[in-house]
Amino acid sequence: MSAGSRYLERLNDGRNVWIGGKPAGDIREHEALRGTARSVAAVMDLQDDPELGPRLTYRTEDTGARANRAFQNPRSPQELAGRREAFYLWSAATFGVMSRIGGFYRAQLAAWHERRSLIAAEQPQFPDKLDAYFRYVRDNDLLLTAAGHDPQVDRSKLTSELGDAYAALRIVRETEDGLIVRGSKMIATGAPYMDEIMVSPHSPKQQAEHRYAVMFAVPVSYPGLHLVCREPFHAEDTEDHPLSGRYDELDAVLVFDDALIPWERVFIHDDPAAIWKIRSDRLAASLSIHENIARLLAKLEFTAAVGQELAESIGIARFGHVQAKLSELQRQAESVRALLLAAEDGAERHESGVREPRLAPLTTAKNLGNRYYPRAIEILQQLSGAGMLQTPATARELDTLAGGALAPLLHSAYGGADRGAPERVRLLKLAWDLVGSPLGARHELYERFYAGDPARTYAAQYAEYDKSALIARTLSRLGS
Amino acid sequence: MSAGSRYLERLNDGRNVWIGGKPAGDIREHEALRGTARSVAAVMDLQDDPELGPRLTYRTEDTGARANRAFQNPRSPQELAGRREAFYLWSAATFGVMSRIGGFYRAQLAAWHERRSLIAAEQPQFPDKLDAYFRYVRDNDLLLTAAGHDPQVDRSKLTSELGDAYAALRIVRETEDGLIVRGSKMIATGAPYMDEIMVSPHSPKQQAEHRYAVMFAVPVSYPGLHLVCREPFHAEDTEDHPLSGRYDELDAVLVFDDALIPWERVFIHDDPAAIWKIRSDRLAASLSIHENIARLLAKLEFTAAVGQELAESIGIARFGHVQAKLSELQRQAESVRALLLAAEDGAERHESGVREPRLAPLTTAKNLGNRYYPRAIEILQQLSGAGMLQTPATARELDTLAGGALAPLLHSAYGGADRGAPERVRLLKLAWDLVGSPLGARHELYERFYAGDPARTYAAQYAEYDKSALIARTLSRLGS
Amino acid sequence: MSAGSRYLERLNDGRNVWIGGKPAGDIREHEALRGTARSVAAVMDLQDDPELGPRLTYRTEDTGARANRAFQNPRSPQELAGRREAFYLWSAATFGVMSRIGGFYRAQLAAWHERRSLIAAEQPQFPDKLDAYFRYVRDNDLLLTAAGHDPQVDRSKLTSELGDAYAALRIVRETEDGLIVRGSKMIATGAPYMDEIMVSPHSPKQQAEHRYAVMFAVPVSYPGLHLVCREPFHAEDTEDHPLSGRYDELDAVLVFDDALIPWERVFIHDDPAAIWKIRSDRLAASLSIHENIARLLAKLEFTAAVGQELAESIGIARFGHVQAKLSELQRQAESVRALLLAAEDGAERHESGVREPRLAPLTTAKNLGNRYYPRAIEILQQLSGAGMLQTPATARELDTLAGGALAPLLHSAYGGADRGAPERVRLLKLAWDLVGSPLGARHELYERFYAGDPARTYAAQYAEYDKSALIARTLSRLGS
Amino acid sequence: MSAGSRYLERLNDGRNVWIGGKPAGDIREHEALRGTARSVAAVMDLQDDPELGPRLTYRTEDTGARANRAFQNPRSPQELAGRREAFYLWSAATFGVMSRIGGFYRAQLAAWHERRSLIAAEQPQFPDKLDAYFRYVRDNDLLLTAAGHDPQVDRSKLTSELGDAYAALRIVRETEDGLIVRGSKMIATGAPYMDEIMVSPHSPKQQAEHRYAVMFAVPVSYPGLHLVCREPFHAEDTEDHPLSGRYDELDAVLVFDDALIPWERVFIHDDPAAIWKIRSDRLAASLSIHENIARLLAKLEFTAAVGQELAESIGIARFGHVQAKLSELQRQAESVRALLLAAEDGAERHESGVREPRLAPLTTAKNLGNRYYPRAIEILQQLSGAGMLQTPATARELDTLAGGALAPLLHSAYGGADRGAPERVRLLKLAWDLVGSPLGARHELYERFYAGDPARTYAAQYAEYDKSALIARTLSRLGS
Repeated sequence: MSAGSRYLERLNDGRNVWIGGKPAGDIREHEALRGTARSVAAVMDLQDDPELGPRLTYRTEDTGARANRAFQNPRSPQELAGRREAFYLWSAATFGVMSRIGGFYRAQLAAWHERRSLIAAEQPQFPDKLDAYFRYVRDNDLLLTAAGHDPQVDRSKLTSELGDAYAALRIVRETEDGLIVRGSKMIATGAPYMDEIMVSPHSPKQQAEHRYAVMFAVPVSYPGLHLVCREPFHAEDTEDHPLSGRYDELDAVLVFDDALIPWERVFIHDDPAAIWKIRSDRLAASLSIHENIARLLAKLEFTAAVGQELAESIGIARFGHVQAKLSELQRQAESVRALLLAAEDGAERHESGVREPRLAPLTTAKNLGNRYYPRAIEILQQLSGAGMLQTPATARELDTLAGGALAPLLHSAYGGADRGAPERVRLLKLAWDLVGSPLGARHELYERFYAGDPARTYAAQYAEYDKSALIARTLSRLGS
Repeated sequence: MSAGSRYLERLNDGRNVWIGGKPAGDIREHEALRGTARSVAAVMDLQDDPELGPRLTYRTEDTGARANRAFQNPRSPQELAGRREAFYLWSAATFGVMSRIGGFYRAQLAAWHERRSLIAAEQPQFPDKLDAYFRYVRDNDLLLTAAGHDPQVDRSKLTSELGDAYAALRIVRETEDGLIVRGSKMIATGAPYMDEIMVSPHSPKQQAEHRYAVMFAVPVSYPGLHLVCREPFHAEDTEDHPLSGRYDELDAVLVFDDALIPWERVFIHDDPAAIWKIRSDRLAASLSIHENIARLLAKLEFTAAVGQELAESIGIARFGHVQAKLSELQRQAESVRALLLAAEDGAERHESGVREPRLAPLTTAKNLGNRYYPRAIEILQQLSGAGMLQTPATARELDTLAGGALAPLLHSAYGGADRGAPERVRLLKLAWDLVGSPLGARHELYERFYAGDPARTYAAQYAEYDKSALIARTLSRLGS
Repeated sequence: MSAGSRYLERLNDGRNVWIGGKPAGDIREHEALRGTARSVAAVMDLQDDPELGPRLTYRTEDTGARANRAFQNPRSPQELAGRREAFYLWSAATFGVMSRIGGFYRAQLAAWHERRSLIAAEQPQFPDKLDAYFRYVRDNDLLLTAAGHDPQVDRSKLTSELGDAYAALRIVRETEDGLIVRGSKMIATGAPYMDEIMVSPHSPKQQAEHRYAVMFAVPVSYPGLHLVCREPFHAEDTEDHPLSGRYDELDAVLVFDDALIPWERVFIHDDPAAIWKIRSDRLAASLSIHENIARLLAKLEFTAAVGQELAESIGIARFGHVQAKLSELQRQAESVRALLLAAEDGAERHESGVREPRLAPLTTAKNLGNRYYPRAIEILQQLSGAGMLQTPATARELDTLAGGALAPLLHSAYGGADRGAPERVRLLKLAWDLVGSPLGARHELYERFYAGDPARTYAAQYAEYDKSALIARTLSRLGS
Repeated sequence: MSAGSRYLERLNDGRNVWIGGKPAGDIREHEALRGTARSVAAVMDLQDDPELGPRLTYRTEDTGARANRAFQNPRSPQELAGRREAFYLWSAATFGVMSRIGGFYRAQLAAWHERRSLIAAEQPQFPDKLDAYFRYVRDNDLLLTAAGHDPQVDRSKLTSELGDAYAALRIVRETEDGLIVRGSKMIATGAPYMDEIMVSPHSPKQQAEHRYAVMFAVPVSYPGLHLVCREPFHAEDTEDHPLSGRYDELDAVLVFDDALIPWERVFIHDDPAAIWKIRSDRLAASLSIHENIARLLAKLEFTAAVGQELAESIGIARFGHVQAKLSELQRQAESVRALLLAAEDGAERHESGVREPRLAPLTTAKNLGNRYYPRAIEILQQLSGAGMLQTPATARELDTLAGGALAPLLHSAYGGADRGAPERVRLLKLAWDLVGSPLGARHELYERFYAGDPARTYAAQYAEYDKSALIARTLSRLGS
């Protein structure tokens, strides 16, 4: 049985997925979910592809079995480059649109595993618990997402100041078997399609909030866990909605209703400092952002290609101001690719033996990305103008409207400079799915914010930058 | 019978509206159309409102009956200000989202009527034909849209160079009864909801394209005319989709399949110069853009209010960088309001007796608007972050999920700093309808492009600006 | 004797002006200062001009003599419009480049005079002292500047936390005759050319800083007051540096070296709250910003005219992308003019009887201006490219180089599309003076920051905006 | 004798340098020129530095002598990386501010030398002439600049349509000894400090303009050649003007007054196509842009360091919005560094045996640079606010003003959060030299335009990009 088939089989586990107030049931059959489930399975299957499989997987040292490359912490320049290639291929399979099929959070888990002894003093059981969990996820090829934000409610207050109403997830009490937790965590991207969820605060907690400082992992189908999904953005017709028909990684709010988390899955609790120490470790950051940027590259190449085709299809690619916009899309992709290479080029051997990609180019790419993607979408708007709105509701109509009587006129009206009406309409539908669908709008929000509020991520980059080296290379010579 | 009821009655006239390959039938009943039809009727009914009616209508000199103020060419400062107020009230009734309920094209028709003798030399029958049509539309309170763009196909060529395939509408032949026309015109905004359509080229045609240079008007239900609609963006639930549920002014491509246009409705044909002369008349431009800007103001006030509420609802309105964004939304509205007032303040008496609003402030507002609105949407994205995606699919779920068992947790998780969960979810749904729905995406495209490609409209503004006055006020004094 | 001559006579009063470490002596003769002094005098003389004089001055009620219109608080729409016209004419006389010839701070003083009883309870002597000072300044047609910022030193601390070193001006002690003050105030724009200086904190002080909370006025030549000037940006040749040769309003840091401020000139001391109450009064704000915006308009018209001429002079004004830039300059001026009109159009009667221009349009213009001007300069850069650097050092050379032997070649090489070499070189020199001279660079900084850090002024606009009216006009109707 | 001394000796060769209408004479002594001449000599001397010399030079194969690395066409990854390092070190010695000390045009000449047989068919003598010239320049360590733009005059016309007045340089006639040329070429950056000038059209000429299509080289002191300099931007005091006092690479217009160019220095004439073929060769482009980007990196690191210091010096580097700006400066440098590495990483073996850096990352860096630098300057403005204007005219004054009596107050007032007044004033002077001096303004123009009008260079990037590879990587997979 293929990796994808095993994945689909695992999905029917009674998970509490709520959509529009109703239980979703078997998500492989649910109208709004089955398309994406199939897409995920298809990506999983790439691991069995004779050509791609060997590039997407590696042989683990301990078991000798092959596992997804996201779990491999690179120990040589070749492994580092191979890891990037695997992330790129994996992401490019869905044009960078499916952002959470096992890339980022798997990589993060592997990096924490590498660094698990970092907090052994504070949390003596952490290394063993995490080791067991890492092997479990890796060896079963499980998909992992995470949730770590508290409900927005009132951002000018600490979570612990929000009263007793269990808005944000917190510990209710300890029992012999584990922790009872209650409240919500936001926002678990793609959770309905995942196997496992890692829960921990994504921003530092203060000591006063210690009851909110808990890191644990549960299967998606865990008792007491409810997935309250946003409105689905799927579309039924993959021809008219090539992206929305396939790649709606439904976000969900996790509501824990007195769920009992067994102790072996409670990695840390009541210790904000320890959680933040492992979360903010530099190696963990650089290894996981490495995945982000490979995905970003796949997505920016995709938008650049769509822009190019839009321009060619209506004969405007020869105009200077259009070329200027198209080359801006190329510059986006070239910059991000260069930063990825520079991170690897500057990689040094971490004390753990891992080849650590340099963080500065990676955070540079991440912080450029949250402006690049919205700008790319704006350029697609500018290139197409109202063209994307001048398509029939379905491509089929070209031939069938009024019993086919209008076909010659419609083919003329919707044709392009270099392609016929069916191809041009398909292209416009694709562009609109990026620019105008709810799925596309969610992606713009995602790229802007997935890594945190830009105001904070920009500031963080300054804080971690090697500023003395900069001064040494420049101003120090001015006095001489 | 109210104006809205009369309107709804008129709609069932057998119009050839195609949606997704199927005939729409009675659009008052069609699932995707009825919501918007009802909204249009409600706006029409405002004319019968005891308080608003007198401000939205005027008494015509010739008939003594009341008509919509869009048909009145202002002859005094009071009439000019009243006209603006009427446009503003009319637009604000749909928050500036319904852009084509009879404002702009009615105003344009009234202005052409005022200037109808401008091309009497070239087109001796034009004045009388237009006079009859104007009275017909005005006195029956008909809604009018227009279409004037050729299919994009290949923008680097003249329409007449695109071959013989009747992509763009052109004259097939003359008959005793009228003109036979064939081909397509793009894009008739809101056409399925209108009474009448004015067809004419929206950019200047060259003499070589004279067979494409025809100006005529037909009822929407005219034989030989097909409305090929884009995919509808409507939503069924007005609670979860307050805008998409009400205001989807469905765009349509007009396909003329050898329609016979009777001579009294053919205002001009085979005369590109005459068409452009009336279309580009300065008075006609300023009187119709006057409507655009009143509508823009209503829309920018709406986005500013939504931004303010978003910020208040999560307690971030006290942060400096948030206030900076909110005040930018205020500046947008204040600038546009000021430009509207300045156009009226600088109005002079046109030779026709009309009080002509000054064009420079109006085109300034128009050319600021195509950047303001996308920026407003970006600010809404920045204010809400992922918040808009962290709502349940429907607001009802708060109380009904799992038989109500999760209600306390859900009300906590989705509550806001200053309002309860139902109100906050409603607000987020509204914001998402602006930012993330296809209707919202269409509006961003609309505001960017409705007045033409910005590159061209910016250049046009320079061309028509009074440059010598500028030099006189400044540089001329430098030498002294 | 003319107003300008009286002004020049007053200048030679032994003021302690330091330039490059040396006393400037009689500034009417100083190489770096005399050009600007002459320009100021010329503007003063406009009050005696038969055509302009009556528009720039008004007859005071109490004395019956004429005074500069900056001192008049408008009591009718006509007076308000006349006031704006006076500010505009006054500023346009120096193309908006001389920002401080008695406009803003005179207007502010007049507004405080109007509102002097506002703090009569806390500061019983304030009304009378200010009344006397106002009449003295007005009736002698004195020029007034102000300084109110503390040295930057460490912006993350309160001034009172900076130690005992008298960086910022503070009270040393009281005596029978007045206050002894010591320390510095930044930055007194144009101080060397002024008659009087108003000193007070330009941002709110806390009670802990009460010794820094002092408001007083002194003549520029006051004993114990030193003006430490920045490097002069003047140029000697007004032909090659038309602006730098005339309009370098030299900024100065004021250093008070135990100056004794007599009690009648100490308006408030040790009372941060009272100072801020009068400073932040809304009427005072709107009356003084009214002047700012009239000046901004003159400056933006000037840059728009320069841009237009640059484009015409090399034959590029017919290109679409150039026209787009030129029309952007026009939009800047049109917006600011419209906001000025809107502020007057919306003016209401203040309880004092003053016609109060509406603040929201004025702050909108102010907050647009700090982006508009830098953008205008960028556009001038883009229009000219390297052209501004391709001029000979002096225009004279065209004819004199190598004894005139190269004149034909030089006239050819430096000629323009529509004008000869001398005219084109003059234009490029003017443009470079705006774009590339230190005076020009200072102006860019000035426009960005004169009204405060934009981050703060944007936030302040939000705070003072009528937000409930906005909601009432829009969202309140959504539920219905 | 050192390289710098030999350089200075060569300068006194009677060159016709005109400044402000007067002959400059010995430029090593001229007040406005000597500072920069000394800076150039100091950079030349780095070649003799025991540590840097070996990195800045290489041993030529044919002579065995060492020459500047700009002349070496890299044949291995090591040589390519070494070449970049040499360019970086060379540029960093003047903080990237001296853009033309023998880097770019030397590299271009070396690349043309590599490709000299490319036009052997059309121009049989070209290879030998260029070979001789290349060896001459290289072996004598000569500095080379170039000029290739025609006077702006009327950009909407071909040069050949501008009439008979010899505005642009063109061929007057051929003689046995060479070509007689007359007219002007713009703009020879740093020409007064150079040894040699390469003249050729920098944009493609049409056949109708063949008399303007001439490529030749002359020594700067050539008879009949006049250098008409722009106004010098030097400053005398290097303490108060650390950049303007050292690095004013004076631009000059070249006026040829019937100069006779000997045939061995006339590389091509009357053949626009051949000139453009060698100029637009891809290898030549990538080898010379490689230098540009190394220099750009040095400059962006410099501006990033200045920004960082400005923020630290007034205690604002801990504020989030300031950190966001500082990290933007870091992102600029990181992106450009990454693109440089990516160009080398992707280098392939050219048929000539040269290791060819990949062009796409280099043009990406170039096209980002023309926006990055102006934005960096804007950030410096925003960080410092008016601080840069609040310095005394000279740093000396702190101690000497009023005979030292004000020293304590001045040291307090001008001190910083982390440094004393002298250091802080020095930093502000440096920042102002970048932001506010004419030299700084020229640099902003330079970075915007040195590589051509951005509108054109963006379009060119699209044209040369490998678009089919982009489609292959992305859209081609969509159909499957």
